[in-house]
Amino acid sequence: MQEKERAKQRAKELVSQMTVEEMASQLRYDAPAIERLGIPAYNWWNEGLHGVARAGTATVFPQAIGLAATFDTQLIHRTADIIATEARAKYNAAVKEGDRDIYKGLTLWSPNINIFRDPRWGRGHETYGEDPFLTAALGVAFVKGLQGDGEYLKCAACAKHFAVHSGPEALRHEFDAQASEKDMEETYLPAFKELVTKAGVEGVMGAYNRVNGEPACASPSLQKRLRGEWKFDGYFVSDCWAIRDFHEHHMVTKTAPESAALAIKNGCDLNCGNTYLHLLTALREGLIEEADIRQAAERVMTTRFRLGLFDRTEYDNIPYSVVACEEHREAALQAARESMVLLKNNGILPLKASEKVAVIGPNADSRDVLLGNYNGTPKKYTTVLEGIYERVGMERVLYSQGCHLYKEKVENLAMVQDRLSEAVTTAKESDVVILCLGLDAGLEGEEGDAGNAYASGDKADLELPAAQRKLLDAILAVGKPVIVVSMTGSAINLSRAQKSADAVIQAWYPGGEGGRAVAELIYGDYSPSGKLPVTFYAKTDDLPPFTDYSMKNRTYRYFQGTPLYPFGFGLSYTTFTYEACIREHCLYVKVANTGNMDSGEVVQVYAENRLCGFTRIFIPAGTVQTTSFPLEEMNLKTEKRLLVGGIGYQPEKLLSISLY
Amino acid sequence: MQEKERAKQRAKELVSQMTVEEMASQLRYDAPAIERLGIPAYNWWNEGLHGVARAGTATVFPQAIGLAATFDTQLIHRTADIIATEARAKYNAAVKEGDRDIYKGLTLWSPNINIFRDPRWGRGHETYGEDPFLTAALGVAFVKGLQGDGEYLKCAACAKHFAVHSGPEALRHEFDAQASEKDMEETYLPAFKELVTKAGVEGVMGAYNRVNGEPACASPSLQKRLRGEWKFDGYFVSDCWAIRDFHEHHMVTKTAPESAALAIKNGCDLNCGNTYLHLLTALREGLIEEADIRQAAERVMTTRFRLGLFDRTEYDNIPYSVVACEEHREAALQAARESMVLLKNNGILPLKASEKVAVIGPNADSRDVLLGNYNGTPKKYTTVLEGIYERVGMERVLYSQGCHLYKEKVENLAMVQDRLSEAVTTAKESDVVILCLGLDAGLEGEEGDAGNAYASGDKADLELPAAQRKLLDAILAVGKPVIVVSMTGSAINLSRAQKSADAVIQAWYPGGEGGRAVAELIYGDYSPSGKLPVTFYAKTDDLPPFTDYSMKNRTYRYFQGTPLYPFGFGLSYTTFTYEACIREHCLYVKVANTGNMDSGEVVQVYAENRLCGFTRIFIPAGTVQTTSFPLEEMNLKTEKRLLVGGIGYQPEKLLSISLY
Repeated sequence: MQEKERAKQRAKELVSQMTVEEMASQLRYDAPAIERLGIPAYNWWNEGLHGVARAGTATVFPQAIGLAATFDTQLIHRTADIIATEARAKYNAAVKEGDRDIYKGLTLWSPNINIFRDPRWGRGHETYGEDPFLTAALGVAFVKGLQGDGEYLKCAACAKHFAVHSGPEALRHEFDAQASEKDMEETYLPAFKELVTKAGVEGVMGAYNRVNGEPACASPSLQKRLRGEWKFDGYFVSDCWAIRDFHEHHMVTKTAPESAALAIKNGCDLNCGNTYLHLLTALREGLIEEADIRQAAERVMTTRFRLGLFDRTEYDNIPYSVVACEEHREAALQAARESMVLLKNNGILPLKASEKVAVIGPNADSRDVLLGNYNGTPKKYTTVLEGIYERVGMERVLYSQGCHLYKEKVENLAMVQDRLSEAVTTAKESDVVILCLGLDAGLEGEEGDAGNAYASGDKADLELPAAQRKLLDAILAVGKPVIVVSMTGSAINLSRAQKSADAVIQAWYPGGEGGRAVAELIYGDYSPSGKLPVTFYAKTDDLPPFTDYSMKNRTYRYFQGTPLYPFGFGLSYTTFTYEACIREHCLYVKVANTGNMDSGEVVQVYAENRLCGFTRIFIPAGTVQTTSFPLEEMNLKTEKRLLVGGIGYQPEKLLSISLY
Repeated sequence: MQEKERAKQRAKELVSQMTVEEMASQLRYDAPAIERLGIPAYNWWNEGLHGVARAGTATVFPQAIGLAATFDTQLIHRTADIIATEARAKYNAAVKEGDRDIYKGLTLWSPNINIFRDPRWGRGHETYGEDPFLTAALGVAFVKGLQGDGEYLKCAACAKHFAVHSGPEALRHEFDAQASEKDMEETYLPAFKELVTKAGVEGVMGAYNRVNGEPACASPSLQKRLRGEWKFDGYFVSDCWAIRDFHEHHMVTKTAPESAALAIKNGCDLNCGNTYLHLLTALREGLIEEADIRQAAERVMTTRFRLGLFDRTEYDNIPYSVVACEEHREAALQAARESMVLLKNNGILPLKASEKVAVIGPNADSRDVLLGNYNGTPKKYTTVLEGIYERVGMERVLYSQGCHLYKEKVENLAMVQDRLSEAVTTAKESDVVILCLGLDAGLEGEEGDAGNAYASGDKADLELPAAQRKLLDAILAVGKPVIVVSMTGSAINLSRAQKSADAVIQAWYPGGEGGRAVAELIYGDYSPSGKLPVTFYAKTDDLPPFTDYSMKNRTYRYFQGTPLYPFGFGLSYTTFTYEACIREHCLYVKVANTGNMDSGEVVQVYAENRLCGFTRIFIPAGTVQTTSFPLEEMNLKTEKRLLVGGIGYQPEKLLSISLY
C-alpha cells in the first residue's frame, strides 16, 4: 500500500511536468514516448486470458471456461503466476529488441469475469462460467497470481467487461442491456466487486454495451459502485473502440469530442481505440477541463510506476528460457487434466490399451480446438488423436475426420457427408469408437473486429453443426461402444450422446497439449475430477430470449426446468461418500474415497440455490479427508439449509445440513 | 494383352445392350448406374498423385516434385504400388458402405507428367520436374506401380495433361500454347509417349489449353500421335470442365453441343465436367453419329472391365487395415529422406544434438507445408519442429513462427513483422538457427476451380514473400550459424541464403511425417542424396516470359545463363570419386564412397546437354559400386561425349567420356 501511494506520488510528479498535449497522448492505448521526460512508448493492450496471447510462443493453458471447470483456486493462481512470468520474460526480451508493440506489454486485459448467463454467447468460453461466486473466487485467484505480491506489480490484471456484458456479439456496439437491481447485485456485479476489494485488481475495462441506458464506458451509476463504494483506484480502460460507439452506434453523443468528453468525465482513463485523439478538441470546446485529463494521466502513469516501468525490478532478470518451458507446460497439462468433466460413463471407461479404437471426428486431430481464443502459439501441439497415439501407439488406432467441423462436406465436389463411409468403416473395424465432436473458436467467439482472427460470434442454438449430428447418429448406429468427447467452450445439447453413447467427456478447449489430458483420462491414468461451471440444458427452447438480461430462468440458480447436466456436475472413476456437520460456526465436510482409484474431488456447498463454498481436494483411494468452511465466509442471509456434495447442483441428492 | 482383348470384347458386348442414352450417360465422369444391365454407378474422378487424395485418411508421400528429387524409379514404383493398395482398400470399404462418390474410385488421374518448364507455374510441384527423360522414367515407374502386373489393373493410371500444359494458371481456360515441332519432340511429348508405349498407361487426360491452335481435348494433331503413332487404346478424359471452355473461353465452337461433338469426334471419350450432357442434342443435330458415342462407351467400359469392376478380383480382399499402416508410412518417410536436397553445407551439418537450437519460420510448425496439393489426410503429421523435438527433445529447442507465411504481420493490429523480435531473441538465445522458409500449396498451386481448396495459382516471381525475406535478413544479422530449410514445390531464388547461410536444405513438401526426414538429415541420421529435378535460377530476370512456350533459355538443357544450383545438383555428407569407361556398348561407372558415412548417390549421365541415364545406388562408406548403362538405351544421336557424375549438370566438372 505504501508502494502504491509512492507510485501515485511519482505519477503525479511526472505528469506535472507534462504539457496538456503530452498528458492527453498518454491516454491512448498506444501511448507514444515523451523523450524529454524519459518516458518510453508503451502499448497498453496485451492479453493473457490463458497464456500470453498474440505475441508468439507461450504456454497455452486450457481456455478460461476449462480453467473454471477445475474449481481450483490454487491452480488458477499458479496459472496466472506462470502467465505473468512469461509475460515478463517476453517483455524483457521484446524491449531489448526495441519492440514495444501491441501484445508485448505488462498490462494484461484479463481476466474476463462476465457471467456466462446464456450458453449462446460466443465469448462465454473466455469466462469462468455462470456462477458469480465461482467467478469471483477464480477471478481473485487469477488476479493475485498475475499481479504477484512483490514490491512491484508482476503484471497488471484487468477485470472486464464492466459490466453485465454477455452478448449478443452482433449487437454489442449498440445494445442496451437492461438489468434489474436484484440481478446486478446477485449476478452481474459481485465478481467485479471482489476483484476490486479482495484482489486489488489494477485495471477495469468498460463494456461495449450500455447498462440500463448508460454506456458502460461512461456510466455514472457504474462508476459510483466502482470508485465510490468499492474504492477502486486503478486505471479504467474502454473496450476497444467502445468510445467511438457512443456517437456511431449508441447515439448518446453526436461527435467524437463529445464521446471523448463523456468518457473521461465518467472515469474512463485510457482509450483502447482512437477517440481520445479528440480530447484536446473537447478541451478547447470546453467540454472537459484540464483536470480531467490530468487525473486520467496520473492514474495511468501510476500503473506504469507500479509495474516498475521506470525502475529496475526483481522481474527484469526473468530469462527468456522460461517461456513455454517444461515446468510451465506441465502445469498447463495438469490444468487440462483437472478441467476434464466426465458426464457419462456406463463402465466403459477407463479403456484398456489393448482395444482397437477408431478415433473419429472433426476435432480429433484439430489444433485449432486446443486453443480457444485470446491464445498464444503453443511450443508444441498435442491433439486428441496425437495424445492417443502417445498413449497406446498408432497400430491399434484408426482415424477418420468423419465430417467437416461445420460444412456439409469436406470436398467441394463431393456429395454431402463425404467422410461418413470412412468413419463408419473405421468404427466397424474397431472395438470401440472415440468420437471427437464440438466447436472451436472459429464457430463460437467474438464479433469480427480488427483484433480478432475470426468473425465467429454467437451460437444460433445449442445444437452441434448438422454434419456432426449426422455423424453421431451414423456412428451410434454401427453398434460399437462410443465415447463422445465434446470439445466446446460452452454448453451444447448433448442429449443424443447422453442417451446413446457409452461415455461422454466434456473436454473444453484444453490448451496446447490438451489432447494428452484427454487420452490419459480415457485410458485411466488419472480419475476425472472437473465439474461443470455452466448448466448444460437439454434444449435451446429451455432458454429465455438471448437479449433478455433478466436472470429469470437462467443458470442453475434460477432455471426452472430440468437440465441435462447440472452446474457443478462431473463423474469420477472412484466413489465418494460424504458426511457433513456444523460445529463452531464452521461447516465440516468429511469425504471418503471408497473406490479403488486416487482422485481429485470438488466439494461444493450451496446455501439453498447458490454456491457459497467450494474446495478442491485430492483423496487417495481408501482414505478420508476433512475440509472446513467458515460460515461467516458464506454470506448467509435467510437460507435455511446448506447442501453439500460433489455432484453439482442436484438439491435432492445432496447432503442437506440445517442451519438451525 | 489377352486380358485386355477380352475386356474390350466384354465392353463391346455390354455396350451393345445399351440404348444410345445409356451409352452417352456413361461418358460423364459421374456415370450413373444402369440397373437393368447390372452396371453400378461409377465416379471416374479420383486422385493419387502422392497418396490417395481427397477421400480422408491415407499415406501422404512427398509431393511429386519431391519424389522426383529421389531420382529413384524403384522407390516411385513402390510408392505407386502402395497408393494403389490403399486406393483398393478404400474402394473396397466405400463400396461396402454404398459410397460410390467422387475420389473413391479406382481410376486415378495421376501422374502429372507435364514438363515444369517455368518455375513460376503454380502446379509445377505436381510434376517430376523440368527434364523429359527423368519425367518419363519416373512416370513409367509410377504407372507400372499403380496399375500392377496382375490379371486386372490394380488401379488405372492417367497421364496428364496432354499436352504442353504448364501455365499460366489464370489463362488456362483460354490459352493457346505455341510450341515448335522441335520443342514438342524434345520436351513436351516424350514422357507421354513413354507412358503409353512403355507403361501401357490406361488413361490420358487432355489439357485445358489449346496447343498450336487446337484445343488439347479435341486436337487432331495430338490424337494422331497418341492413338495413331503410339497406339494408345485406353480412355481419354477431358480436364475438368475443359470442354465447356471450347465455347466459353477458347471460342472454337459456339454452343455446348458443338463442343461436345468436337471433343468426342476427336477422341475424347470421357467428360470431366458436364458438357457431354449435350451429346444427345449433338446427335440429334447431326453433329455426331451414334458410332462416336458407341466407340467412347466401349473404351470407358473396357477400362472398367480391366479394373475387374464386374468380376471378383485378387484385390477385393485388400483389408482396410493397410490404409496408412506402419509399413506404408515408413515407405513415405523413406521417400522423404531420399527427396531432401542439400544445397549448401559449410561443415555445420550434421548438427550435434547437444547444441541449443532456435527453430524459426512460418513453415517450421506448419502442417500445410507437408502436404502439397492433391493430397490425402495423414494419419499423423510430423512438422519439422516436431521432428526436431522427436530427435533431440524439447528442452534445448526454442521456437518462433518468425513471420506469417506471406502477410506482413501475424496480428491484424500489430506493426509489421510483429514476430521478428521474438525470432531474433530465440536466435540470440541459441547456438544455431534452423530457419524454415518457403511456400505452401496455398501460395503456389492450381487456379481456383471448384475441386481445389485454394485459389492459389502461379508465383509472380522467384522471391520468397517479403516478410520471409526480412526475417532471413534479420536472422542472418544476429550472427549465429543459420541452416535454411526451404520448403517449396518449385525453384525459388535462394541467392541470399546461399551467400550467407551456413547450410541450405531444399525439403519440398515432404509428406505427412516429412518433418522427421528433415530432422534426421540435420542431425546426421542419414546422408542426403536427393538431387534437384529443376534448375534453381539466381533471379527472375533470367527467365523468358512465362507465356512463351519456346524452350529457348529454359531448363538446364537450353538455359544460357548461370544457374544458382544446376539441375541434378545435391550435396552429401560423404565424398565420392567417379571413374567411367565405355566397353562393349555399355557405359560403366564406378563410384567410390571415399568419406566416412554410408550414403545414397544418384549417378547421372548426360549426352552433351541432356540427361540420358541415371540410377540411384547406395554405397556404404569405404566401398565401391559399379553400375552400367547400355548405350542403346541412351537414344544417342550426334553427341560426341557423355558426361558422368553425381553433382548435376555442371559440364565442366563432370567426367567426360568420348563417344569416339
